[in-house]
Amino acid sequence: MRVTIVVLLLVHYALSLNNGLVRTPPMGWLAWERYRCNTNCAQFPDDCIGEKLFMRMADRLVSDGWRDVGYEYVNIDDCWPSRERDANGRLVGNSTRFPSGIKALADYVHSKGLKLGIYSDCGKLTCGGYIASGGNEKIDAETFAAWGVDMLKYDGCYSNETSRKVNYPLMGAELNKTGRPIVYSCSWPAYEGGLPPKVNYTELNAICNLWRNYGDIQDSWDDVVDIMNWWGDNQDVLIPAAGPGGWNDPDMLIGGDYTLSLDQTKTQFGMWAMLAAPLFMSNDLSKLEPDIKTVLQNRDVIAVNQDVLGVQGRRFIKQDSIQVFSKPLDKGEFAVAAFSTRTDGTPHAIKFSLNDLKISGAKFYSLFDLFESKHLGKYSTAEELDIYVDPNGISMFRASPISVENIFVEEVFEINENF
Amino acid sequence: MRVTIVVLLLVHYALSLNNGLVRTPPMGWLAWERYRCNTNCAQFPDDCIGEKLFMRMADRLVSDGWRDVGYEYVNIDDCWPSRERDANGRLVGNSTRFPSGIKALADYVHSKGLKLGIYSDCGKLTCGGYIASGGNEKIDAETFAAWGVDMLKYDGCYSNETSRKVNYPLMGAELNKTGRPIVYSCSWPAYEGGLPPKVNYTELNAICNLWRNYGDIQDSWDDVVDIMNWWGDNQDVLIPAAGPGGWNDPDMLIGGDYTLSLDQTKTQFGMWAMLAAPLFMSNDLSKLEPDIKTVLQNRDVIAVNQDVLGVQGRRFIKQDSIQVFSKPLDKGEFAVAAFSTRTDGTPHAIKFSLNDLKISGAKFYSLFDLFESKHLGKYSTAEELDIYVDPNGISMFRASPISVENIFVEEVFEINENF
Repeated sequence: MRVTIVVLLLVHYALSLNNGLVRTPPMGWLAWERYRCNTNCAQFPDDCIGEKLFMRMADRLVSDGWRDVGYEYVNIDDCWPSRERDANGRLVGNSTRFPSGIKALADYVHSKGLKLGIYSDCGKLTCGGYIASGGNEKIDAETFAAWGVDMLKYDGCYSNETSRKVNYPLMGAELNKTGRPIVYSCSWPAYEGGLPPKVNYTELNAICNLWRNYGDIQDSWDDVVDIMNWWGDNQDVLIPAAGPGGWNDPDMLIGGDYTLSLDQTKTQFGMWAMLAAPLFMSNDLSKLEPDIKTVLQNRDVIAVNQDVLGVQGRRFIKQDSIQVFSKPLDKGEFAVAAFSTRTDGTPHAIKFSLNDLKISGAKFYSLFDLFESKHLGKYSTAEELDIYVDPNGISMFRASPISVENIFVEEVFEINENF
Repeated sequence: MRVTIVVLLLVHYALSLNNGLVRTPPMGWLAWERYRCNTNCAQFPDDCIGEKLFMRMADRLVSDGWRDVGYEYVNIDDCWPSRERDANGRLVGNSTRFPSGIKALADYVHSKGLKLGIYSDCGKLTCGGYIASGGNEKIDAETFAAWGVDMLKYDGCYSNETSRKVNYPLMGAELNKTGRPIVYSCSWPAYEGGLPPKVNYTELNAICNLWRNYGDIQDSWDDVVDIMNWWGDNQDVLIPAAGPGGWNDPDMLIGGDYTLSLDQTKTQFGMWAMLAAPLFMSNDLSKLEPDIKTVLQNRDVIAVNQDVLGVQGRRFIKQDSIQVFSKPLDKGEFAVAAFSTRTDGTPHAIKFSLNDLKISGAKFYSLFDLFESKHLGKYSTAEELDIYVDPNGISMFRASPISVENIFVEEVFEINENF
């Protein structure tokens, strides 16, 4: 199994965009799902798309400990530009909502030890009808670089299949020419249905650092489930496409918004970690319930997402409305997650062995529950696990090899202390 | 408008079961949705269907303030009986899970100032396959009365349309003959599709105190929405059927379980209040988040549910995935609720006037937001309200008449203080 992983990594490395960025999935905050195109600052001074919102979220990322666990990007989405380019043909931020300009906002975000993301579109207009970059790739890339922007989400409204084939690579090339490291997030595959033959993931890996494969997430558990199902159903296409420097993006984390329960929040967060997905929250960081914050800052779950191998998890079991995924981690470890879409009131048991998840390399593994923060014991790969999963909830653990075949002696010592 | 209400009430009074019970919708706790038929006390000592669970919930209802805001029933659901009747042909509780017997449990519940509900079925077996009351109505009614039971939920598995026509009235008659006041909850209409001509709500009102019109609720927002839509779509049938002594029952409150967010919990609770629904929580009272408890103990919302008129709310607006209901209250007041099934990230505005909800009787009303606990101001019935509703959330207020036509002078004084 470990040999297989190494081979996949080598394949991916050879293909992926070589700008040295996002060797693990990017983490941060993105405005769209929660704030949309709210430009009514008179009625919503705290929640409209403007510099105050992004400065407030940057402050929160630092003061509430988000930066310390890995969330580093503060990303603007649609509806930020002025209605006109300036006299030199450059994009400018809306002067009422971004009175200090995007450069000043980038400086502020950088002063906090964070990075700034911005948004444009490969057509003439953004999805919200604002000025976009189609035909102005060079000047816009230079403008973003001059401002100190660290990431670009490049949407695909007002484009067609032919124009996207030209304009996505073009913007990627222009970003590279600026010399500034700018993470390039492409919505391209989502506009082509996300699957071959219309989507060429080998080509995409050479152009973009991450890409939206599927539709926009809404504030809805049904949407989270739909996305997870699509990821599982199409994993044979998606898993080889992902790895250090290039990531499939199932869209934002919506925990802390209006519609997910605590269990559903854990499920989305845990599964996004399993899928090696970019972790961009879109929520009001100043209004999070403490237990939601605890979930989204869970360092053990984040470590699964940020594992250096960068392998996307695979679904091995789908039965009784419970799905079980496993994700190979560095040093012969694995992450395992079982999530439920059941609604029948009580936790439901699912039985499986590590063998069922093709976990091998050692005879015994020590299991550590990542949301409960407790050791579950030592299991052989053939032994049956009896895991209870809450309705719409997740059970997630890390499996660490402890057999004599294990080459990492320090782990044996550590585990011996616990058992 | 007020004249119309009085007429409806008179009609309802004439038809409803005259056992003097539940002149306002019953409130309490019911095991089914959260605990199902979990009989595995070895593995789940705290959560299996047994006397310990019901005693624990009774304790919680008192210690956590639920009884003080109106929740008084502690209701057993399926899977409580022994597999055999006793030597005298009487039902007995499972001796392992109810070692003290149901009578002792009733005594315990009564000692707490609460009431005990139990469950049986009009067929030979319950839905869970336990012994039921079909053919044993007399002895079972007498047994329940002898135990001190205060309410019976009577299910309809293992029955047919013909047997239900006989057995539901029969059990009602036997309960009445015992002389003990026992609230009679009939699942009958849910087994007939809930609508005329198969369901005769006039007859039902003469037999039962409440009735399940529709399918069982699951731990799912989609289910809550489906139920609310069905109630709105069929309101011309359902509204005349409800009133003091006889209530349409959209099933349990699932707030505090696994799948509803805080906003969704408010929406279900607020809408159940608007629909004059029985308020039976089915959750683990010992594991509720504080903010969920605050919602389910909201005295202002409970007052809407418990209003003495007992009129079920009516839907007047359904647009842009927001529905607006109003419910006439005593003394010329009205409750108004707007709930959203939107998932697009931000609160959404809906505009309407009190006139649009056929609220009349005064020229001006004072509005008080029931979840935010704040005055919204004074509005004429023609004035446009601009209400923001969270995704999957609810905005709910009480409208109190303040014009010169208002005959309740003390309200005018109270409102003048606030404005």
